[in-house]
Amino acid sequence: HSSKLPHLGTSIFTTMTGLANQYNAINLSQGFPEFDTPERLKQGLAKYCGQGFNQYAPSSGLAPLQAQIAALTGRTYGTDINPLDTVTVTSGSTEALFVAIQTITHPGDEIIIFDPAYDSYKPAIELAGGRAVHISMQAPDYAIDWLQVAAAITDRTRGIIINTPHNPSAKTLKQADFDELKALVSKHQLLLISDEVYEHIAFEGTPHISVLSDPELFSRAFVIASFGKTFHCTGWKMGYCIAPEVLTQEFRKIHQYVTFSSFTPAQLALTDMLAEESEHITALAPFYQHKRDVLVNALQASRFTILPSEGTYFLLLDYSDISPLDDMAFCEYLVKEVGVATIPLSVFYQTATNDKVIRLCFAKEDDTLLQAAQRLAAL
Amino acid sequence: HSSKLPHLGTSIFTTMTGLANQYNAINLSQGFPEFDTPERLKQGLAKYCGQGFNQYAPSSGLAPLQAQIAALTGRTYGTDINPLDTVTVTSGSTEALFVAIQTITHPGDEIIIFDPAYDSYKPAIELAGGRAVHISMQAPDYAIDWLQVAAAITDRTRGIIINTPHNPSAKTLKQADFDELKALVSKHQLLLISDEVYEHIAFEGTPHISVLSDPELFSRAFVIASFGKTFHCTGWKMGYCIAPEVLTQEFRKIHQYVTFSSFTPAQLALTDMLAEESEHITALAPFYQHKRDVLVNALQASRFTILPSEGTYFLLLDYSDISPLDDMAFCEYLVKEVGVATIPLSVFYQTATNDKVIRLCFAKEDDTLLQAAQRLAAL
Ligand SMILES: CSCCC(=O)C(=O)O
Ligand SMILES: CSCCC(=O)C(=O)O
Repeated sequence: HSSKLPHLGTSIFTTMTGLANQYNAINLSQGFPEFDTPERLKQGLAKYCGQGFNQYAPSSGLAPLQAQIAALTGRTYGTDINPLDTVTVTSGSTEALFVAIQTITHPGDEIIIFDPAYDSYKPAIELAGGRAVHISMQAPDYAIDWLQVAAAITDRTRGIIINTPHNPSAKTLKQADFDELKALVSKHQLLLISDEVYEHIAFEGTPHISVLSDPELFSRAFVIASFGKTFHCTGWKMGYCIAPEVLTQEFRKIHQYVTFSSFTPAQLALTDMLAEESEHITALAPFYQHKRDVLVNALQASRFTILPSEGTYFLLLDYSDISPLDDMAFCEYLVKEVGVATIPLSVFYQTATNDKVIRLCFAKEDDTLLQAAQRLAAL
Repeated sequence: HSSKLPHLGTSIFTTMTGLANQYNAINLSQGFPEFDTPERLKQGLAKYCGQGFNQYAPSSGLAPLQAQIAALTGRTYGTDINPLDTVTVTSGSTEALFVAIQTITHPGDEIIIFDPAYDSYKPAIELAGGRAVHISMQAPDYAIDWLQVAAAITDRTRGIIINTPHNPSAKTLKQADFDELKALVSKHQLLLISDEVYEHIAFEGTPHISVLSDPELFSRAFVIASFGKTFHCTGWKMGYCIAPEVLTQEFRKIHQYVTFSSFTPAQLALTDMLAEESEHITALAPFYQHKRDVLVNALQASRFTILPSEGTYFLLLDYSDISPLDDMAFCEYLVKEVGVATIPLSVFYQTATNDKVIRLCFAKEDDTLLQAAQRLAAL
């Protein structure tokens, strides 16, 4: 039996969380919050489960949840969408990304992705018989060279996957990037997958620009969002995809055979949460900006070079003044000897880089961040 | 933009449940129970969610749940499996089926499926670049012609998907079938996907035979199971796949990029449920046998010909004495004019059949079944 993904093993997140548990290290590797989901959501889940809403939801999601997602989209981006035709609820944004990639990628198609790239893009493209074309972004700026993107487009190019705020670089795309992107996708009739799972976590001075706020871009896009990131419930595996009706139809054809539908009580609880309270969402960016600043301040005295974090709940550190080890070896050293689990940046690149950069997740209690920073600053 | 699944639209289950709601008909179409999931499971969900277990589970599932699944497998089939290496928890058995199909199917591969076939098999095969080879089973026996299967095997054949108890035919595979199957898969070195989501719903005289109870078959198999069917919680989207370690490794590579992991509080609640109580499971077959008998008895006086239901929560009816309509038209008539939603069998066939057969779901309260039967018997 031959492998469908011969070059791949276990995801880095599984590996590093496993090592963190094994060595009892502070786990700043896999991205998930140390804080709990809001009380109201937990109570909603218990309520609807208790009331017997435990059978299949519609494959596209419960209509009231679709409507609340559309309302949120209107409030946030001023975009007017028809929920029933454009919003599909998914079992996490991982599923949404997987299905969107399956939807656009025919065998032989090329899909442009930006390295460092979230680890699920490339295998999803390859499982669809496509080829990932990698454009590299480098520390410390992680800027996109749009001339390089233009040069990479061939007549097999079907689409581009963007991600803003960007995991793992913690950068946001700027209006100038969107102008370049728009020119390219229009000229070459490309489709777009816009991974915006950290949309509500962009910091002062570096606002999040959504594809949803640009009708021209949205007309050819799948926008992927995550309740897990927004409501501190990564274990609920709830996300969604917004796309124009013609694209949504094709997305749903595949979604219905991948998971069919998503957890019913969570859909009902999230519907109420979105209807009743928007404060949690508007408070999210300042909340995480504080977390970032706690970690940054505590690392100021260390020998790490701190890279700017404009959004997401990640911070990059350059350790080239500390160690000559490659980043995988350095991360192994950190988890085993220093007691802090982190993620090596090189795993997100197709072509080896010399960047000595690691990623830390700061979605943690202040105390956890301070303790981790203390261990790192001792190096 | 061209479609990845050009010949497919919305699944029949979405269509018929939609019509049932629109026409306020009794919904015996899409398979889901009218009864609620056990109190203990609901309380477990509320408890673990309330206690803050709301972040990612491991991609393969929580270890205690894997262990309980292995214990259940031991109790039920006498099979000794190593949970950590062979059990993967998935977001419903739909995801498990999709991932297993992606795992075995390379572009150009042929996968043998038996019509009437559950509707997700073929699109999943085609999305992987494979080709579904259809072997037809016909009313009223729905027997497999193993000579025809043998003749359909080519050097591109990679695997066979079996399903027992079988949806939609409600038949169980017999030991003679397994003997034929075993000879074929060994001779041609084929892989096997065994959809056993109704494993605990097989009726008196027609026991369920699991691939898990045959070491030789299991050595080349992915066995798919469903908590939704067993615990009346189809909306929780919890299932699993059991496969030998080498196959599980490949399955997990794909699973981690399709959904990554599944709803954490449900995994904890199911762990306790499996640990504390097996009565629910052993009571399931008699419980559904009673439901079947209620429906069958109430239809005895009708002009439908009742086909034998050996397992699952489905019953087939032949209406050729009632109407010359094709089954899709007859089902539309039933939902709109008679007030009962059912499923036409022909949608599960690749090649048109003349069988005038519809499928009814009897996972309903006795009253619901009696009311539906009364409407049908009036025809
Ligand atoms: C799905 S596990 C990975 C979580 C995450 O998004 C990350 O750590 O980057
Ligand atoms: C996933 S919706 C379909 C439910 C079902 O298994 C059936 O009705 O056959």
